[in-house]
Amino acid sequence: MSVSIGDVERAAERIAGHVLRTPVVEVSPGLFLKLEGLQHSGSFKARGGFNRALACEGIPEAGLIAASGGNHGLAVAYVARDLGVQAEIFVPTVASPVKVAGLRALGARVTQVGAVYADAYEASVKRAAETGALDIHAYDQAEVVAGQGTVGLEILEQTGGVDTVVVAVGGGGLVAGITVALGGRARVVAVEPALIPTLHRALEAGGPVGVEVAGVGADALGASRAGEIAFEITSAAGVRSLLVSDEAIVEARRELWRNHRVAAEYAGAAAYAALLSGVYTPAPGERVAVVVCGANTDPATLV
Amino acid sequence: MSVSIGDVERAAERIAGHVLRTPVVEVSPGLFLKLEGLQHSGSFKARGGFNRALACEGIPEAGLIAASGGNHGLAVAYVARDLGVQAEIFVPTVASPVKVAGLRALGARVTQVGAVYADAYEASVKRAAETGALDIHAYDQAEVVAGQGTVGLEILEQTGGVDTVVVAVGGGGLVAGITVALGGRARVVAVEPALIPTLHRALEAGGPVGVEVAGVGADALGASRAGEIAFEITSAAGVRSLLVSDEAIVEARRELWRNHRVAAEYAGAAAYAALLSGVYTPAPGERVAVVVCGANTDPATLV
Ligand SMILES: Cc1ncc(COP(=O)(O)O)c(C=O)c1O
Ligand SMILES: Cc1ncc(COP(=O)(O)O)c(C=O)c1O
Repeated sequence: MSVSIGDVERAAERIAGHVLRTPVVEVSPGLFLKLEGLQHSGSFKARGGFNRALACEGIPEAGLIAASGGNHGLAVAYVARDLGVQAEIFVPTVASPVKVAGLRALGARVTQVGAVYADAYEASVKRAAETGALDIHAYDQAEVVAGQGTVGLEILEQTGGVDTVVVAVGGGGLVAGITVALGGRARVVAVEPALIPTLHRALEAGGPVGVEVAGVGADALGASRAGEIAFEITSAAGVRSLLVSDEAIVEARRELWRNHRVAAEYAGAAAYAALLSGVYTPAPGERVAVVVCGANTDPATLV
Repeated sequence: MSVSIGDVERAAERIAGHVLRTPVVEVSPGLFLKLEGLQHSGSFKARGGFNRALACEGIPEAGLIAASGGNHGLAVAYVARDLGVQAEIFVPTVASPVKVAGLRALGARVTQVGAVYADAYEASVKRAAETGALDIHAYDQAEVVAGQGTVGLEILEQTGGVDTVVVAVGGGGLVAGITVALGGRARVVAVEPALIPTLHRALEAGGPVGVEVAGVGADALGASRAGEIAFEITSAAGVRSLLVSDEAIVEARRELWRNHRVAAEYAGAAAYAALLSGVYTPAPGERVAVVVCGANTDPATLV
């Protein structure tokens, strides 16, 4: 396996002091929410970013480089600022001015290039080869996957053990890291918007395939194919991917605020949507942890 | 003392299973936020409400009664629904239609009477005498104070101990309960808006005195005098009351969202404002817990 539980444990040691141990709240007996939207930069992405940067023996003079108009970019910009190095973030020209401003506010150098994410990504790879900056992939790098996996270790510690962890999937770095971290101590249920079934299709096809990207989760869950590492790990572990409708995601996000005063972005509510809509129904007495993985959202839209 | 640490411990046992053990997050080394806005009904008020209701040997046929256009009313309505009894809530005629609708949505019977809170309160006392309903005071009842104190017990357990707990004051039920719960194991710093210095004036005057009520915290911290129990407990324990400006509260609330993705109402941000504005400066290495006591707010106003 490309990522071992030891890698996740070492990641946890490495990033401690740089990331928050986000809290868990038991909202009803046996139902735990892992509040990863409270993480620095507003999502779990800071974990993988820190692990990749800190695993490297001395960050290059040119700093860190990434392609992302979303949470990954914010996280890499945050990591760079925290470590006192440069960040260069490539975003497609369609990226919202608000997001670009957010990246700049964190001190990142932002380059807008290409019509879609894939173009921005390609440009970032080229640029990294020129400058020698450390590239941090959004999901398909062993150190990134190991860093995201620290969420799984914390869930086991903070809940005293659960039967099931329910988690949203974009490129699959988070679900893969958690799967490794749990090492069979709890089952993993992957959840994807029906409009972006990257892992679902990969598991059907026996390997990552390109999918269309659409819907409310697209800004954070909109990888157009699952990562190779994510496919390898989740298929070997027999992880199932369940699909939820956009309506279910919207309703779950509202419910998280209305009943629990938890602010989540759409991607952050996707896993909870699987429970709320009955796409995943726990057995009586089953202990379930739901990862609320991001809160980078306009709070005005919570109600 | 009218409330003992044993009373708080018994309250914790009584209300367990009805209230959430809200999470604590360490946002920087030694700085803990107790996220009580995630509590059922959106504030700590459910704790005191459940303790008062459950300490009573059989809730009367007429159910629960309270006067409050704010979080206390919501909490009592929630408690009643949870326990399957009636709630009658008296609110002044100026109460916002949104709050009245919120109370009704929880199944409460709402009576609008009187121009100000004091009139609504008087009417509720009269009505309680007629119907025999169990009156739940917003702060000046031993069971209510003991219930709020469970926040303090949880802070000690969840942090492994702190030097200081910083907490906002309205009528003083929360600060009094926490002071009893800590029993000298941590110091209590009370925080009030400079525009509503109820406890501050009471400690100066040697007893509760009437004050004007104004500013952003008025809807939740706007008791016009400190409770007798709160005065007795906090003065005996040497609790200090620090005053913060409305500007500091507004900024602290924004900062909680911007940097930590914590949603708080103004009252919920008052304690944090004391730290952020430098009204309270911890010593190097001092471990401080800040109670973020409520999140009943329009999220659109967080940014
Ligand atoms: C909030 C949020 N949740 C989930 C994901 C998906 O993560 P992954 O690509 O590791 O599957 C992302 C990716 O950006 C995200 O920002
Ligand atoms: C959010 C919030 N914080 C603080 C207070 C003040 O509580 P106390 O009256 O117990 O001092 C209240 C009272 O309603 C409240 O709703």
